[in-house]
Amino acid sequence: MKIDNQDTSILITGAGLCGALLGLRLAQRGYDVNILEKRPDMRSKVVDAGRSINLALSDRGLRALELVGLGDKVKEFCIPMYARMIHPKGGASFSSNYSGREDDFINSISREDLNKLLLDKADEFEKVQIDFRKEITSVDLRQGSVDYKDLKTNQLNHWNPDILLGTDGAGSRVRAAMARQRDFFFSYTTDWLPHAYKELRMPPADDGSYRIEKNALHIWPRGGFMLIALPNLDGSFTMTLFMQRKDAKISFENIATADQVTHFFKEEFPDVYDHIPDLLEQYAENPVPPLGTVKCSPWTAHGKTLMMGDACHAIVPFYGQGMNAGFEDVSVFDQILDESDSWATAMERFSVERKPDTDAIADLALDNFIEMRDSVSHPDFQMKRAIEMKLESAFAKAKYASKYSLVTFPPKGTDYEEAMIKGRAQDKAIIWLINNANLHVDMPAEELLEAINKKTEEVIWHRS
Amino acid sequence: MKIDNQDTSILITGAGLCGALLGLRLAQRGYDVNILEKRPDMRSKVVDAGRSINLALSDRGLRALELVGLGDKVKEFCIPMYARMIHPKGGASFSSNYSGREDDFINSISREDLNKLLLDKADEFEKVQIDFRKEITSVDLRQGSVDYKDLKTNQLNHWNPDILLGTDGAGSRVRAAMARQRDFFFSYTTDWLPHAYKELRMPPADDGSYRIEKNALHIWPRGGFMLIALPNLDGSFTMTLFMQRKDAKISFENIATADQVTHFFKEEFPDVYDHIPDLLEQYAENPVPPLGTVKCSPWTAHGKTLMMGDACHAIVPFYGQGMNAGFEDVSVFDQILDESDSWATAMERFSVERKPDTDAIADLALDNFIEMRDSVSHPDFQMKRAIEMKLESAFAKAKYASKYSLVTFPPKGTDYEEAMIKGRAQDKAIIWLINNANLHVDMPAEELLEAINKKTEEVIWHRS
Repeated sequence: MKIDNQDTSILITGAGLCGALLGLRLAQRGYDVNILEKRPDMRSKVVDAGRSINLALSDRGLRALELVGLGDKVKEFCIPMYARMIHPKGGASFSSNYSGREDDFINSISREDLNKLLLDKADEFEKVQIDFRKEITSVDLRQGSVDYKDLKTNQLNHWNPDILLGTDGAGSRVRAAMARQRDFFFSYTTDWLPHAYKELRMPPADDGSYRIEKNALHIWPRGGFMLIALPNLDGSFTMTLFMQRKDAKISFENIATADQVTHFFKEEFPDVYDHIPDLLEQYAENPVPPLGTVKCSPWTAHGKTLMMGDACHAIVPFYGQGMNAGFEDVSVFDQILDESDSWATAMERFSVERKPDTDAIADLALDNFIEMRDSVSHPDFQMKRAIEMKLESAFAKAKYASKYSLVTFPPKGTDYEEAMIKGRAQDKAIIWLINNANLHVDMPAEELLEAINKKTEEVIWHRS
Repeated sequence: MKIDNQDTSILITGAGLCGALLGLRLAQRGYDVNILEKRPDMRSKVVDAGRSINLALSDRGLRALELVGLGDKVKEFCIPMYARMIHPKGGASFSSNYSGREDDFINSISREDLNKLLLDKADEFEKVQIDFRKEITSVDLRQGSVDYKDLKTNQLNHWNPDILLGTDGAGSRVRAAMARQRDFFFSYTTDWLPHAYKELRMPPADDGSYRIEKNALHIWPRGGFMLIALPNLDGSFTMTLFMQRKDAKISFENIATADQVTHFFKEEFPDVYDHIPDLLEQYAENPVPPLGTVKCSPWTAHGKTLMMGDACHAIVPFYGQGMNAGFEDVSVFDQILDESDSWATAMERFSVERKPDTDAIADLALDNFIEMRDSVSHPDFQMKRAIEMKLESAFAKAKYASKYSLVTFPPKGTDYEEAMIKGRAQDKAIIWLINNANLHVDMPAEELLEAINKKTEEVIWHRS
């Protein structure tokens, strides 16, 4: 199909965050868009448990929301988080800013609020039709068509659009069809962490206020496991406990009974224990979803089908970039559509050019788990962060950005792959300089910058 | 099952190289071993085309053959290859030794001869029963049992052994069952190269002699593609053309017609063209199998089932280590059985301890494709090899071994993971020293060694 043919009919599988944003953007471009979604409309139903409740929205995601005209509106749902608030075991809490620049912060936002906002905005377009409770049962990649079941009537239907876009999440049916076909070679990886997670809600205080600092992402780092908390608009926090499923003393297998849970929280998180009156009920009832990484290639088939978001690059949550990466997919693809003549070449180009970036954020997210649960407690790490804050305060973004900033508050045009290569090298360089060249935050900023840049270049050479 | 219970019944799926060696070794340990094999007995049938015809047997594989008492016998089937014989485009051929030590060489051996040797040896044991033309149709991992079809009678049967060992190759049914089950989290990767391969036979000369140097592995490096040749006992060579399937000017898609093939060989491999009278017929008839890497984890399930060899770690052929890694699996597992009380713990330990090594050889094999098709032509690479030959001639193996030697002729106890880490760093260090510190083969060996060791340590630090 030619890009400029506005009669092109587009079918999107999945009206989650990425699918809803994609549908909205394509409608803005003038196409006919249909979205099939297995779940009921969350605007009229209570949402299922089991998916993460709040998310960290940052610059890459915000830019895509600005593209569809929701940049201001979304802020009503955002709680700025300026820092990590770190709660060491038995020690005093301390905060560590995400950036040395005041305007750089991440936002806690409810998945449900954000998804509803996108659905409402998409529904404003006559050219958008969202069908809920429609489950994809099979995908024919040669045709670019789907069979689906109406979950209300159990009726089976077939749909053959001009273009099929799979945004059906980590358990994607479109990806499953890619893995099964034998027309081309499909490479894929599914990698599970030994860790899983459990969400717990810390309610507001009796007066409705936040029980702990509102404008921070809280971390209780404990080496092999950790607890985190993100604020919600209603004064509560969503806490997430990450620990191994089994094969460790501290694991979901071994922290299971009421006694074990009580003892564990009193020992490891005594400050939290007092704030969750119904801890035992929540712990017993809430699920323990796994944590995995999905990579695959190609994302496109037969010039008719393309995957985006978690469907082709699901990542672990430790960089808070899963949703941001999916949203950035939409803005990157939008740009490619501007520069393409046909859908087939646009989809092919997106599949080839975008993958190195989503591979990079997948790897960075795994790195960050170690950082959050372990490194943040170490003096060298804290010195590194202090030095980086100083440089970010002193210089423009183009002159210095930490790895965290390169990923989360990127200088214009910095993709995830560049953020990974440069960010990892900088981290290594700074730690080396602290240990071997007495690098210290009290040194003049210019001197720090020069030493770090020099050593970073050396590390990049050695790693390439 | 206790390790010392010799009534333990073992079922092996697949009587290929790894399965036959494993069955033989377990029979030597006193167990009852049954092997189910889908193909007909190659000792009474012409073997299928489509699998690589000859292989490079080196120290890791030889050690496993020595373990089962075939170390001497196998040499009757081996053609030593001491060097790479490199055929640059338009230039004179030159040879590059695999090692600076005379006793270190690799061996060209026919897959069929070696497999028959293992089957014959296994058949000498009353406790071994090999059933051909039995195809596994499903695997029950909780039971550790299989359903299989007798391809002669089409009869379906069920088998529930004490221990199930999957050596059913890259398309493993046991691995497929692992990927399908939901009792535990199974991580897996399938990664296809854009390249595929085609085998071609260069017949002996009219007088029965070898048309090109017998005791070498021949390479025609051409950047994005390459041709190689390994000698056979009958005076012929098996040549393998590696090139992209499509999306490149030089690809199987674009070199397809008789005219294209003729022009391509005359242009790129004029010395070869004259030696294969039936080139066009062979090229038209022979298949183009893909090249892929398989990684997964765990290799074991429910304390009853374990995979080995290609079934859990299929790799690309460019280091000549696929078979050697599978054979080494058998000797590593044999050692672990010596040190274990139960099969369940032995299998679990093997799965955990062996995987970093097979991951490493998978990655090294991908590296080596670049080296073979490209780097071997470069002056820096040739200087590096000259320096390494000098060091290997001058010093004992424990004092210096090149990456190639660490992998292929390993100093005692050097596993693949160590070979990868040390070997990659050494390569990088030597190239750096050649470019930045005038390292040259004419320098005294002691001086070379010291400079390389120092820079290698530095590179290892930076990469970790």
